[in-house]
Amino acid sequence: MAASASHMPNPILLGCGAVSVDYLATVASFPSPDDKVRSLALKVQGGGNAGNALTAAARLGLAPRIISKVSNDALGRSILKELQDDGVDTSYLMVAEDGNSPFTYIIVDNQTKTRTCIHTPGYPPMRPEELTKENLFAALHGADMVYFDVRLHETALLVAEEASQRKIPILVDVEKKRDGLDELLNFATYVVCSAKFPQAWTGASSTPVALVHMLLRLPNIKFVIVTRGEKGCLMLERSMTDASETEEIDVEGLLESLEQKVDSSSSMPKCIVSKSNLRISADGVGSMSGRLVLGTAELIPSEELVDTTGAGDAFIGAVLYGLCTGMPVEKMLPFAAQVAACGCRALGARAGLPRRLSL
Amino acid sequence: MAASASHMPNPILLGCGAVSVDYLATVASFPSPDDKVRSLALKVQGGGNAGNALTAAARLGLAPRIISKVSNDALGRSILKELQDDGVDTSYLMVAEDGNSPFTYIIVDNQTKTRTCIHTPGYPPMRPEELTKENLFAALHGADMVYFDVRLHETALLVAEEASQRKIPILVDVEKKRDGLDELLNFATYVVCSAKFPQAWTGASSTPVALVHMLLRLPNIKFVIVTRGEKGCLMLERSMTDASETEEIDVEGLLESLEQKVDSSSSMPKCIVSKSNLRISADGVGSMSGRLVLGTAELIPSEELVDTTGAGDAFIGAVLYGLCTGMPVEKMLPFAAQVAACGCRALGARAGLPRRLSL
Repeated sequence: MAASASHMPNPILLGCGAVSVDYLATVASFPSPDDKVRSLALKVQGGGNAGNALTAAARLGLAPRIISKVSNDALGRSILKELQDDGVDTSYLMVAEDGNSPFTYIIVDNQTKTRTCIHTPGYPPMRPEELTKENLFAALHGADMVYFDVRLHETALLVAEEASQRKIPILVDVEKKRDGLDELLNFATYVVCSAKFPQAWTGASSTPVALVHMLLRLPNIKFVIVTRGEKGCLMLERSMTDASETEEIDVEGLLESLEQKVDSSSSMPKCIVSKSNLRISADGVGSMSGRLVLGTAELIPSEELVDTTGAGDAFIGAVLYGLCTGMPVEKMLPFAAQVAACGCRALGARAGLPRRLSL
Repeated sequence: MAASASHMPNPILLGCGAVSVDYLATVASFPSPDDKVRSLALKVQGGGNAGNALTAAARLGLAPRIISKVSNDALGRSILKELQDDGVDTSYLMVAEDGNSPFTYIIVDNQTKTRTCIHTPGYPPMRPEELTKENLFAALHGADMVYFDVRLHETALLVAEEASQRKIPILVDVEKKRDGLDELLNFATYVVCSAKFPQAWTGASSTPVALVHMLLRLPNIKFVIVTRGEKGCLMLERSMTDASETEEIDVEGLLESLEQKVDSSSSMPKCIVSKSNLRISADGVGSMSGRLVLGTAELIPSEELVDTTGAGDAFIGAVLYGLCTGMPVEKMLPFAAQVAACGCRALGARAGLPRRLSL
């Protein structure tokens, strides 16, 4: 499955967004204010959505480049080294002489299965003019795909504008509303978002309605995937041509019909696809031509489930790999679900990621 | 006041105990489990009781040496550099090639004034055989005083035994019951302890009764000081000779008589001393010869009070300085209270410490 096995050059992915160091401190119980407690274990690992997703993509076989910023402190140097060791090209990663690199302290309470994150942003923040035209052009040269996690949004917009002019497809990974998000979504070819985002962004009454709303509001995007944790994912994909059937089908009813086909006895991720080129409508929102796809998650036995931190980033890394290698959707979604499940079997966002596995 | 000003060699202090890095992350409000929050500010600073107390002592004018252990990671290197920059001799500080250095993540909530500490111990821990006889002898050579914070207790006991044979006075800083504490206290010349410790260790009904109990149970110690935060400190000092007066005075009544003499209108720390060489008794415990001393704290206006973290370590650093330079108790306690107050005017254990101030 790895691209390198086919003797083709590895597809090039340019990502722009957050990198960080995660300090995962396991405690016996979550502390109360003024407590003095000891951690039972500590794990230090690279983090940040872009850092994680590009690491997953690199391990699967893409050649990622990253645009981000750290400081020339111990954390920054460890971020650089870890990315480089995983095969991520850090030539376009800015290093500030002073200041502090971004890091996240994560209080891991295994009894209650909570993960409490305190993020300290990097300082000084990235200014868009730090990315020179020469570097921007070099970073985009030969790129097959561009990825954003909606951080460093002023820089991201510059990259998106140039990528768009060069007709390089853009995937935007959306967790929640952030500065610059709406402008960035206008450049998106693909959107992968968190479970709560579609309704939060559109105000729609349900997630499937919100997906129709998103495709209507963003005419350039080819698909939106919403990730729903152990419930799997939902994808609404636009047809390249207008619907062949004139009869409209309601998106909520369509989802129900897909859900009825789920085989809950299987632990392996599956993909349930509606007919292609339907006319899909949502009450009070409108209609669009395309298909709805339901992807199930891998069922992880509770004794194997360690930590879902970063599972979403692993999923996106696999989607990026699937898109760059021309994987059909029916194969890509179960593949991404399997990669995400690998990440859930170890503590931290990257520890469980496959290393050039044939899945 | 600084020893260097008198053209005498700086007294040598050997300390053995905890060093650490403190990450002070200020948050808008203390997080709940599973929250994802951002810190508003971050301060990275050396910590650990021994590290802090020796830094205070060095800044006041002593020449401290430290026995402790870190790893050869970024944190360990910053611990070493910071101690060296403050004039602490790190020749006897072990550096493990692998593992992690001790650090403490401190969640600073300024609204509720809480400081929540999650400490990650260093790994691998110090083994007493790592301190060679040659290094132990060299570390003690010419030392005027030895300090312990009851960490690394197996190593501490080796140092205490050798120091005791060389008749070097030993100060033990006790926060709470720890492994090896009782054995270490048998070697102590001076004890400085937290407000709760005397009762916790003796089971006595009140702190003054517990202090009498401590001096009876530990016949070699000259004084115990208990620090009580903004209430100041209390010291019970043993006479070198038996009490001149045969009549016994109850320790609780004696404390009350001292407390009545406190001038609460003054913001500067004061020292209120009982008659010397009294026969001081405690109900059901026994009696000893000595005097009771009440030290008041510096009254810090609330707008100047930033962070009491490390105030106790600063106090002890000043007591060590006072003992090494032969300061009378009447001068030493107000001096130590002033040094502790300096430390309360900045965030973190060391930021506010005086730099060779003449107090």
